[in-house]
Amino acid sequence: MWDVAERLKALLVFAEHRYYGESLPFGEDSFRDAKHLNFLTSEQALADFAELIRHLRKTVPGADGQPFIAIGGSYGGVLAAWFRMKYPHLVVGALAASAPIWQFQDLIPCGVFMKIVTEDFRKSGEKCSESILRSWGAINRLSNTGSGLPWLTRNLHLCASLNSEDIQRLKDWIAETWVNLAMVNYPYPASFLKPLPSWPIKVVCQYLTNPYMSDSLLIQNIYQALNVYYNYSGQSKCNNISETTIGNLGSRVWGYQTCTEIILPFCTNGIDDMFEARAWDLDKYSDDCYKQWGVRPRPSWITTLYGGKDIRSYSNIIFSNGDLDPWSGGGVTEDLSDTLVVVNIPEGAHHLDLRSSTDMDPPSLQLARTVEVKHMKQWITDFYGNDRRLPLAT
Amino acid sequence: MWDVAERLKALLVFAEHRYYGESLPFGEDSFRDAKHLNFLTSEQALADFAELIRHLRKTVPGADGQPFIAIGGSYGGVLAAWFRMKYPHLVVGALAASAPIWQFQDLIPCGVFMKIVTEDFRKSGEKCSESILRSWGAINRLSNTGSGLPWLTRNLHLCASLNSEDIQRLKDWIAETWVNLAMVNYPYPASFLKPLPSWPIKVVCQYLTNPYMSDSLLIQNIYQALNVYYNYSGQSKCNNISETTIGNLGSRVWGYQTCTEIILPFCTNGIDDMFEARAWDLDKYSDDCYKQWGVRPRPSWITTLYGGKDIRSYSNIIFSNGDLDPWSGGGVTEDLSDTLVVVNIPEGAHHLDLRSSTDMDPPSLQLARTVEVKHMKQWITDFYGNDRRLPLAT
Repeated sequence: MWDVAERLKALLVFAEHRYYGESLPFGEDSFRDAKHLNFLTSEQALADFAELIRHLRKTVPGADGQPFIAIGGSYGGVLAAWFRMKYPHLVVGALAASAPIWQFQDLIPCGVFMKIVTEDFRKSGEKCSESILRSWGAINRLSNTGSGLPWLTRNLHLCASLNSEDIQRLKDWIAETWVNLAMVNYPYPASFLKPLPSWPIKVVCQYLTNPYMSDSLLIQNIYQALNVYYNYSGQSKCNNISETTIGNLGSRVWGYQTCTEIILPFCTNGIDDMFEARAWDLDKYSDDCYKQWGVRPRPSWITTLYGGKDIRSYSNIIFSNGDLDPWSGGGVTEDLSDTLVVVNIPEGAHHLDLRSSTDMDPPSLQLARTVEVKHMKQWITDFYGNDRRLPLAT
Repeated sequence: MWDVAERLKALLVFAEHRYYGESLPFGEDSFRDAKHLNFLTSEQALADFAELIRHLRKTVPGADGQPFIAIGGSYGGVLAAWFRMKYPHLVVGALAASAPIWQFQDLIPCGVFMKIVTEDFRKSGEKCSESILRSWGAINRLSNTGSGLPWLTRNLHLCASLNSEDIQRLKDWIAETWVNLAMVNYPYPASFLKPLPSWPIKVVCQYLTNPYMSDSLLIQNIYQALNVYYNYSGQSKCNNISETTIGNLGSRVWGYQTCTEIILPFCTNGIDDMFEARAWDLDKYSDDCYKQWGVRPRPSWITTLYGGKDIRSYSNIIFSNGDLDPWSGGGVTEDLSDTLVVVNIPEGAHHLDLRSSTDMDPPSLQLARTVEVKHMKQWITDFYGNDRRLPLAT
């Protein structure tokens, strides 16, 4: 974004989403209950961005009468796409990077996401995904023995002693680690979620080459593999399974969003993926939401509002995806029209194209950025050309 | 609509706007205070229509996979246009009849509306608008005399005795009558707001041919003219200036909408129009809203949300206007693109095209309906043709 903004002589503006960071409508009370969280919706967030653009047009010298482009990655990419869809008079186009706009309802099979995670591990080392698949049983068996729980605590270097009720949480924490690694499986050292080496899954898989060893040896290897993610810098003293790895991205508020609008059905079956089988259970999901927030999800509202797969009447959106990114499963990966276009990056993980250029960028990434800039230039040309409209009345 | 629906083999569905008719979210309490009225916004209304369409697709046999078209007149036409703009995945197009989507902020001069009303009277009889222009001074002068108030009460056949504080209200009531007549100045007898003869303004103007008679004679003529509107059926015993003439259209709730989102700036100057000069005063307007509802208007939100004049990135909307209709001043009266098209009806008043066909329809109206149906057929053809998308996931 920084590189491209300079080339296009653009001003980069980072809009903070309400209820995140410092954008708290009720200060400390913002998260207190559903009543205070009631103003946290994607529509309200888009409305904020609309007000922001009008504000910028009025207050930034030279901004009035200039085209705006929405850019975002992940949920931010979803918002960028939705913003262009709902406010095409305010942005000439959107770059929606790794934006899973179809990870809703039954638009795609619920197993796709974890299947892609599994693929990443399968391709990154012989027997790697099989080792992980076997590890769940190993943990289950160990946790059923008297000495298993303290052994697991010790050998996984956990900060707190495991109880038998913690086992599901332990497995969830490990599974989430593999998911996160799939998201940040970048071709060069990076520290988006954690400081990591280049192609971190390859490094992880160096420890996971033999699924058929004893349970304890397998788990010791799993520990080494986890360590790539949690202790690449060598600073970590112990592993805290209560700490969500994306905690710093505002997961608390995100939890509320996933209990109201952003319902992402996920499932596994242990056959097409390397995880324990788990069905998508909306009723249970809804009950959990009600317990935690006092609200129940509305799983069909997002597709009603934003069109689901039926979005060809919208225009000027680039959907970029990394083939390695599990979120690409819920993304738009084939052109929908001349102006709803797709850029797929075979060597890409989660919104790799939004990162700064490096000497290690694979050619597919360089090409992706070129195509993206080409489209942006076209939107700008169209804006100044025949489609030029007067700036908004203020 | 009935005629065209039959030709297109369409199902006609009338969607009731929330807070109107029987669609009261809190029953009798719905209008109690701003807290209960808080869910009355155009966005919520559009969302209702979106949910309704999904519901119809699921529950009406044969409706799934079929194209929908939004149709509306006046505010309903505005909503039809906005619905196509925000939910193009749910309707293939919209017919926005007499929809003043630009009667907001400073998109058009605030005096346009009353200027068109004046034109209608000017063209309907010699000295007609001049008589009305002179009548305000006559009322003012009469109301300043001791016997003037009872004289006005008697000669205007008012139900309640006039006090001097009522004079402004009396003049507003009369002005509103001329406005309403302009809206329903249809070429044949109709009873949209009131039962009326064909070209009612021509009938009104038969009583208003001499502006330069005495104040009392002028006002007696004004009474005769008002009577065309209020007593064409001969049933009315007296005139009630507290009764808004569009009360049956839900003006109470409309008042709240005009105090929050739907801010329509109107002004007169007594030069370009036949009314007493009155500037548009947003501060006073806002104070009045605060007194009545405890809310203040957000005059720029509608243009931020719906694009103001910058709507060329949207598609498939027919804007139809009647040249005689004062609302045409805030309407779209020139094609904006190949798919944002305009149908102007020189002999038309307020959404004349939505009324049933009659033998008295002027040729311009017949042509308008033909053009409208042509566009609708095109949208339907496009839907089934190349642009055909799968129905929404349910």
